[in-house]
Amino acid sequence: MSYLNVKIDLTKKFIKSNLKDYQGRVNEVHDMIHNKSGAGSDFLGWVTLPTDIQSEMVRIQAAANKILQQSETLVVIGIGGSYLGAQAALDYLVNKEDQKMEVIFAGHQMSSGYLNRLVKYLENRDFSINVISKSGTTTEPAIAFRILKELIYQKYGEEAKNRIFVTTDAKRGALYSASVAEGYERFVIPDDVGGRFSVLSAVGLLPLAAAGYNIKEMVKGAEHAMVKYHQTDIEENEAYKYALVRYLLYKEGFKVETLAFYEYELFYLGEWWKQLYGESEGKGGKGLFPASINLTTDLHSMGQYMQDGPRFLIETVLSVNKVSKDIKIPFFENDNDNLNYLAGAKVSYVNKQAQKGTIEAHYAGGVPIMEIEIPELTEYSFGYLVYFFEKACAMSAYLLEVNPFDQPGVELYKSNMFRLLGKPTK
Amino acid sequence: MSYLNVKIDLTKKFIKSNLKDYQGRVNEVHDMIHNKSGAGSDFLGWVTLPTDIQSEMVRIQAAANKILQQSETLVVIGIGGSYLGAQAALDYLVNKEDQKMEVIFAGHQMSSGYLNRLVKYLENRDFSINVISKSGTTTEPAIAFRILKELIYQKYGEEAKNRIFVTTDAKRGALYSASVAEGYERFVIPDDVGGRFSVLSAVGLLPLAAAGYNIKEMVKGAEHAMVKYHQTDIEENEAYKYALVRYLLYKEGFKVETLAFYEYELFYLGEWWKQLYGESEGKGGKGLFPASINLTTDLHSMGQYMQDGPRFLIETVLSVNKVSKDIKIPFFENDNDNLNYLAGAKVSYVNKQAQKGTIEAHYAGGVPIMEIEIPELTEYSFGYLVYFFEKACAMSAYLLEVNPFDQPGVELYKSNMFRLLGKPTK
Repeated sequence: MSYLNVKIDLTKKFIKSNLKDYQGRVNEVHDMIHNKSGAGSDFLGWVTLPTDIQSEMVRIQAAANKILQQSETLVVIGIGGSYLGAQAALDYLVNKEDQKMEVIFAGHQMSSGYLNRLVKYLENRDFSINVISKSGTTTEPAIAFRILKELIYQKYGEEAKNRIFVTTDAKRGALYSASVAEGYERFVIPDDVGGRFSVLSAVGLLPLAAAGYNIKEMVKGAEHAMVKYHQTDIEENEAYKYALVRYLLYKEGFKVETLAFYEYELFYLGEWWKQLYGESEGKGGKGLFPASINLTTDLHSMGQYMQDGPRFLIETVLSVNKVSKDIKIPFFENDNDNLNYLAGAKVSYVNKQAQKGTIEAHYAGGVPIMEIEIPELTEYSFGYLVYFFEKACAMSAYLLEVNPFDQPGVELYKSNMFRLLGKPTK
Repeated sequence: MSYLNVKIDLTKKFIKSNLKDYQGRVNEVHDMIHNKSGAGSDFLGWVTLPTDIQSEMVRIQAAANKILQQSETLVVIGIGGSYLGAQAALDYLVNKEDQKMEVIFAGHQMSSGYLNRLVKYLENRDFSINVISKSGTTTEPAIAFRILKELIYQKYGEEAKNRIFVTTDAKRGALYSASVAEGYERFVIPDDVGGRFSVLSAVGLLPLAAAGYNIKEMVKGAEHAMVKYHQTDIEENEAYKYALVRYLLYKEGFKVETLAFYEYELFYLGEWWKQLYGESEGKGGKGLFPASINLTTDLHSMGQYMQDGPRFLIETVLSVNKVSKDIKIPFFENDNDNLNYLAGAKVSYVNKQAQKGTIEAHYAGGVPIMEIEIPELTEYSFGYLVYFFEKACAMSAYLLEVNPFDQPGVELYKSNMFRLLGKPTK
């Protein structure tokens, strides 16, 4: 069995085509990815990132140790791919209780209330900053960095220099220049790795190492997935199988893919996944709408719609086999709540039965389900899962005949906004 | 101008029909709501709840004061409609900085890690519990209540009785019986108010009053909306207009409605809205899929899809006119980040230009947009907005010819789960 067990029940007949008929097309796309012959091939650096990043790991860990030594809090400034991966991992790993330092995000929105509260909070904390931006001119992180830069210099004077860590382009851009001029330690966002594929570069690894997590294990997981998902056979390569099945469901007329999970800690992995698939595929009028479903919470809000609304939903379930912290349901002499039949059972067991019951119910309701079983929530499995979804995403977007690596649609609101703000043109 | 300004630009021609042609049908549905002649008419208690709740307010406030006096933390145990409304209001109001006591939720999922961390955290806090459940046997809150009941009795002995507050059915059910047998103060979930319409009953008001918010203002907002949205003319009744437009867009083939907001503090209002519309409309194969979009955050993840994916998206923008806490962008002598053109501007101003630029861009991309302008985030506007969405939801679901007040689709997973858990049948 593979490390990730991907269960797709084709007997349910949601797809009319035979998967095997697409093996040739999958082979072609595989070659496009590995020979860099498809659209957007300048952005395939993530394919070998798990080995390429090795040479950076020592310096990342050293900077992380320094941050940890001098700070109670690390403020990570970034938006989109510059924050979602690290945020996803921090939540994914929270029950390990290994986190050594608080990590707070900023510049991932423009809530003035949030920035206000953050500045007030940081006044009484020893903190460092990791600002992450390819260009350095993305509005949200640039504003947050200005405001927090003022604070950190007020607080530490020139010593602030040693508390600012920059992750940016290797050679150019406003943030690159500022970091050279002002003398901040600098890490690289590789030219050939787009934001939504960057969590296993310094973008994600520096904050995660500073938080106290084992980034070697994370990269090792990704490296093993890199080897595993290099083969082309769709029966063996479950990343390709997942990609192909969701592509075929899309062709059958399904409109929305929900990523469902029963462990609260996967919420931000869902947000990360939404960016990965939404931004890679949602172009030229194509693509499944990616939504996430947080269960069992959302069974009591979105459950009705999932069960009985329009039948254009696919459900991909992230299933966790073993939780790291469990808790028993106590026995009560008076059984006022009729719950003694569960006394002594662990909450994770009940949660798992809710998952099984829901999968059965959704199948009965006409929802195609794919299930991805994760052995447990560790650094290793996080890295593995990230690579699984990245590889599947490239396959899926190429099957759809879109460029997986561009995002032309995000420019229009920016140019409108800059016009409204009166940004000087050069 | 109305208190909430609803902007719907019909010149954009997303709808082929003439709204006025539907005035007759709107009048019929209005009568169904107010004469209780439609499906689910036993659950119309929310229509007059803003006046009916008045007699309960003194006791709710007294209990809230007691909780506040004796606790650092209130743990609210509930799921679905028993938690989303209070959670939405707490976030909505956070920048007022009026909150006097921490409120934590439990029983809204079955994460064993979360329950573990919660128990550990509460060991060192003075806390009270408000458990909210119509039946008392909903699995998630029942489990959380058992675990926390054990803790609170260990900690306070028999005095724990005075720290447990129950919100449940007026006359029956496991939680009702337990609260009588064990002597807890009890509040009522009215028989004619379903969970997703219950935030302005004791369900939402007790936790919000305990947190220190002005529930009188909240109910006053709802009461004013109740009067405002009693009229039938779709040009005057913006709740009905919103309902009618989204219904007509659905008929034109749109599949997904995204609730978009530019203030981070509206995230849980989005979750509350998803339950309200998803559970009321998603049945019999009908209904728009409700999703929420947290901006500008999600412009950097879902923005590409919104701009350029399949054209089956509607966007409803919640726009906040005045923020309660603002922050200025500082001037830097060295303009390394090219941001001096914004120096001295307030972050809320930049955020507002992002909103305007995005609305323009999404219109250009073929997304129909409705904009709901909220003057500011106060208790009053929260109550008003809740009533607006509830009234619109009833209209919308009846237009769709579904029962807005049932949720037959949520039973199947439960019966599957109970079978898997071996729950004794009586």
